[in-house]
Amino acid sequence: MKALHDRILIEGRNLGRGILKVDSFLNHQVDGSLMDECGRELARRFESVGATKILTAEISGIAPALATAFHLGVPLIYARRTKPITMPEQVYLTTAPSHTRGQMVELMISPEFLSSEDRVLIIDDFLATGQTILGLARLAQAAGARVVGVGAVIEKIFEEGRHSLAPLEVPVEALATVIDMDGGKIVLR
Amino acid sequence: MKALHDRILIEGRNLGRGILKVDSFLNHQVDGSLMDECGRELARRFESVGATKILTAEISGIAPALATAFHLGVPLIYARRTKPITMPEQVYLTTAPSHTRGQMVELMISPEFLSSEDRVLIIDDFLATGQTILGLARLAQAAGARVVGVGAVIEKIFEEGRHSLAPLEVPVEALATVIDMDGGKIVLR
Repeated sequence: MKALHDRILIEGRNLGRGILKVDSFLNHQVDGSLMDECGRELARRFESVGATKILTAEISGIAPALATAFHLGVPLIYARRTKPITMPEQVYLTTAPSHTRGQMVELMISPEFLSSEDRVLIIDDFLATGQTILGLARLAQAAGARVVGVGAVIEKIFEEGRHSLAPLEVPVEALATVIDMDGGKIVLR
Repeated sequence: MKALHDRILIEGRNLGRGILKVDSFLNHQVDGSLMDECGRELARRFESVGATKILTAEISGIAPALATAFHLGVPLIYARRTKPITMPEQVYLTTAPSHTRGQMVELMISPEFLSSEDRVLIIDDFLATGQTILGLARLAQAAGARVVGVGAVIEKIFEEGRHSLAPLEVPVEALATVIDMDGGKIVLR
């Protein structure tokens, strides 16, 4: 994923406290071709896990997860943070700390779209502490579904999300790995 | 767009008060192939307007807008409802009534990604009253950019959004048009 690495190094901004701003191609402005390429690569890495659904969290996970869903040919479900009026009364709900909001947020999915038959591949924009992804895994498990993999566009390895995800016992893949952001740097592996 | 029409008629639910639930392929669970097809068709219809950016509102607009951006080969910007810490202090901000939330919501974009050089194509999942789209148009205009078109996946014609958008003087396209939801029906044109 040289294209992704280049964009991170050229356009990424280290805002301190581990915050990597990639708003020019991933989190506010989105590069459709780059997302397609990320989705294609994530689909390739997980082609053997037999996923039946992609699960992500609104908002920033939607773009890379949609591209992955398209290339794997399975539906995407995005967990909502607030309940729209189209969602049934009874939902699967969990909470997770939001790094970029500094507070707990709710994550919920409708029981209509996940069942015990499903094999769930979780895709998100970032793998940082892993807490959002663990929240998504709890939602999948609440539906009786099996989590079969976790993929992220960018991993910040020093936040140790990979360690937090170990109990899931599934393959974890990241397309770019940031190994150091000390002193304003952005160092990729 | 026969595939889209079929999905609306088979899976859509009329929840009353003009609320069309299409959570199985557009608003919670998303069909990646259908989104790709919608994006391809919207790109075809707007290929001559010279768009340099696609603009949408989080959350449900992201999937069809990303597919359109991909097929037109231009970046997508999604207006945020809450300000992430990666966004500068100074933003373009407006408010618009949210039909599905029953309250005013904020919409904001960073000045980093829109300028007076830009020609903006607004894409959203629904065209209902048109108020969200008018809010997006205000954001584009605040940046000095020119709105060159409005595209929606589904239009609810009886909410008269097309009339509200007339002052923009741009082409308005919808891939499916719901003409009647009285008495539990879903009637497409």
